[in-house]
Amino acid sequence: MSRITSERFQEIVRETLPFAASFGAEILELEEGRARFRLPFKGDMTRQGGTIAGPIMMAFADMVMYAVVLSRLPDAVASVTSNLTMNFLRRPGQTAMIAEGRMLRLGRRLAFGEVELFSENDPDMVAHATLTYALPGR
Amino acid sequence: MSRITSERFQEIVRETLPFAASFGAEILELEEGRARFRLPFKGDMTRQGGTIAGPIMMAFADMVMYAVVLSRLPDAVASVTSNLTMNFLRRPGQTAMIAEGRMLRLGRRLAFGEVELFSENDPDMVAHATLTYALPGR
Amino acid sequence: MSRITSERFQEIVRETLPFAASFGAEILELEEGRARFRLPFKGDMTRQGGTIAGPIMMAFADMVMYAVVLSRLPDAVASVTSNLTMNFLRRPGQTAMIAEGRMLRLGRRLAFGEVELFSENDPDMVAHATLTYALPGR
Amino acid sequence: MSRITSERFQEIVRETLPFAASFGAEILELEEGRARFRLPFKGDMTRQGGTIAGPIMMAFADMVMYAVVLSRLPDAVASVTSNLTMNFLRRPGQTAMIAEGRMLRLGRRLAFGEVELFSENDPDMVAHATLTYALPGR
Repeated sequence: MSRITSERFQEIVRETLPFAASFGAEILELEEGRARFRLPFKGDMTRQGGTIAGPIMMAFADMVMYAVVLSRLPDAVASVTSNLTMNFLRRPGQTAMIAEGRMLRLGRRLAFGEVELFSENDPDMVAHATLTYALPGR
Repeated sequence: MSRITSERFQEIVRETLPFAASFGAEILELEEGRARFRLPFKGDMTRQGGTIAGPIMMAFADMVMYAVVLSRLPDAVASVTSNLTMNFLRRPGQTAMIAEGRMLRLGRRLAFGEVELFSENDPDMVAHATLTYALPGR
Repeated sequence: MSRITSERFQEIVRETLPFAASFGAEILELEEGRARFRLPFKGDMTRQGGTIAGPIMMAFADMVMYAVVLSRLPDAVASVTSNLTMNFLRRPGQTAMIAEGRMLRLGRRLAFGEVELFSENDPDMVAHATLTYALPGR
Repeated sequence: MSRITSERFQEIVRETLPFAASFGAEILELEEGRARFRLPFKGDMTRQGGTIAGPIMMAFADMVMYAVVLSRLPDAVASVTSNLTMNFLRRPGQTAMIAEGRMLRLGRRLAFGEVELFSENDPDMVAHATLTYALPGR
């Protein structure tokens, strides 16, 4: 079970990440070390051709990994991304995106995980991210 | 000399990357294989503490590398990011950001380069990105 | 089912990657788009403290991804690594390593996949790699 | 000026990284936060076609960044690589390689830098690496 509630996470995002909050992502699942989010499709997220812009996907992946970190360390609100490596694999559809994140290593100073991005109702991965978060001193 | 003018690049960004265009980045220099951009500071780009959000920096780096690609291949408007690896090194100041991008390898199918991000008037690097663009079939 | 046999893959490694071949890695499973390898522990692979050196793990991950590529494209022997991103998560044990690789995207020009490394009989991931291979012209 | 001598660095490599030491890399320059190394060409480092194997280049880049770390923190012998991101840009020649490494950010817990690899007497970059080292507790 996640050590932070979905409601509390959304509150933190609104307070600390207004840019990300503006996307209106929904939390589908939040377990300890795991999260699944949904990003509704909006026209202003697109690049030419009507597909979701890369930076929006990066922001989405980053938010999901932040939730994964807080699902294990609810007090680590001050955690910050130190590395984000994103591979864009396919053009996403003109539809909502689903992100699945999981923690691969929670150390004393760093958390490392991966986030997979899909177009809703399509099994082919659209983008893959690995992220490292620097944890606040404990 | 860049094979694309700054004016033409800004036009392409407005047409194809409306999300990035909304940041209002300025082109300081655009040479063949090299670009220097400035991102004015705006309050709505920030995360808590008033510093520029990571996803904004990623979008900025991505736009600069896109300019670097077009400075060599003015017709490669359909190029797309295939990898972006971003390392966040320091908290940026509450000020404009400067990005310096350069091409490290232009192949037949892929372009690879790096972008360094700074807070204006501060020599310490804030973030470092390497990017691979997939070029359209030629 | 893999489109290349384990025997044929080992033969290719001996011919084209003598450095990697010298490690004596064993193929546990080779399916279409998936591979599981075992790297026996040898004293000369170690860094101080008796644990397997990082470059050995990178070479091992690279070989496993090469097998994953050939499991789908048996004729793509001339494929070469264009990006390897490796995250070292834990100190490995003084024991054999297991690598699990899978294809995440096979395009016309690029193959992208991930490889997870473990110490044998230990569920905690030791290292995580993502790799891009450039495929030969087809 | 480097805070560690070339002789002391070579001694540490022999003691702690016997695998890397076996390559016989030479130190051309070692300054504070900067290093330039040369890797003599040997037949057993090659992959088919006689060019230096990718894992050898990764091991070389890793050693150079280790020297860069020690040039600033001579006592941080216990530093370990936490991320290595390598982009292979061109096939290297059948000749010695030159690596140029520099520190981009030295934090309290992490050091981040880049290493550029060239074939000797050829200005075109062969491979580019960014590396993060986790520093021992201070």
